Order: sequence, then structure tokens, then C-alpha cells
Amino acid sequence: MPRVVVHVMPKPEILDPQGKAVAAALPRLGFEGIASVRQGKRFELELEGPADEAALARVREAAETLLSNPVIEDVVAVETVEEQA
Amino acid sequence: MPRVVVHVMPKPEILDPQGKAVAAALPRLGFEGIASVRQGKRFELELEGPADEAALARVREAAETLLSNPVIEDVVAVETVEEQA
Repeated sequence: MPRVVVHVMPKPEILDPQGKAVAAALPRLGFEGIASVRQGKRFELELEGPADEAALARVREAAETLLSNPVIEDVVAVETVEEQA
Repeated sequence: MPRVVVHVMPKPEILDPQGKAVAAALPRLGFEGIASVRQGKRFELELEGPADEAALARVREAAETLLSNPVIEDVVAVETVEEQA
């Protein structure tokens, strides 16, 4: 079945407490050299039909209404993933 | 500053209640044709230095110890993102 990946990130102007917490924890665990971290979401959707234009438009609409909160998040990418053999 | 994206997904054999909840909500909101949803995480890290081999190895180690829970999650990809002009 075709697989579509949706990437959602907090908008740049939104404070991201999860990312800030991770960024603060990294040096405590010995990982230096990372200036900032932002945490978003990654959804993998399996489509029942082909990943054609219409299906991707539907996924994008779902991504913008259900998978992300448009007040604080951006859908940064919707991409089709090749079938694994 | 170079930016690295880390993708984390629940392991295939792990039940994913968030993804299941999203998959159940989609048809209720009028989105048909999506067979399954799995929800993972997407981290954007900004590096202080260049994104060379050593830095990426460090990021991968951080991804596997701090950004993901290795009992239930896989780091599915660590990729360098081109600078935006």
C-alpha cells in the first residue's frame, strides 16, 4: 500500500518547551555542540488507493485540520514514500 | 547553522494508540481511504559546528539515547538539511 509521510513542526514564533527541555538535557548527558532543538511530529499514513494527486490533496487537508493544530503548528512537508520491496 | 533532522517512529510491533486514535478520527471527519496511521516524532537540531561525520555520529548517538526510547521506538533517519538562503 502506498505510504505518505506528514511532517508537522511548531511554528517558528511559538515557544517549544519539549524542544527546550531536550536541548537543556543534551549537555547534561555529555552531548555538546547542539545549539537548539525543536520537536515536532511525524505521521506515516497508509493509503487504501493509489497515491495520486487527489489522494495527496486529501491527505494534505487532513494534515492541516486533524494532524496539526494550525494555531501553533505548520505542516512542513507531505511526501510519498517508495514501496519497500 | 547546519540543521539535522532526526525521525523517530514507534517500532512496528508496538501498538501505537495515538496513531490508532487519529486513524479512527479521520473517517468521522470525512477523510476516507486512509488505511492506517502511525505517529512518531521529528526533531530539528541546529549544530554549532559543521555537520561533518563526527557531528552526525554524535547526533545519532543522542538520537538513540535521549531523543528516542529504544525499547519502543526506532530512529528511522538522521538527515542533514540544506541551509536556507
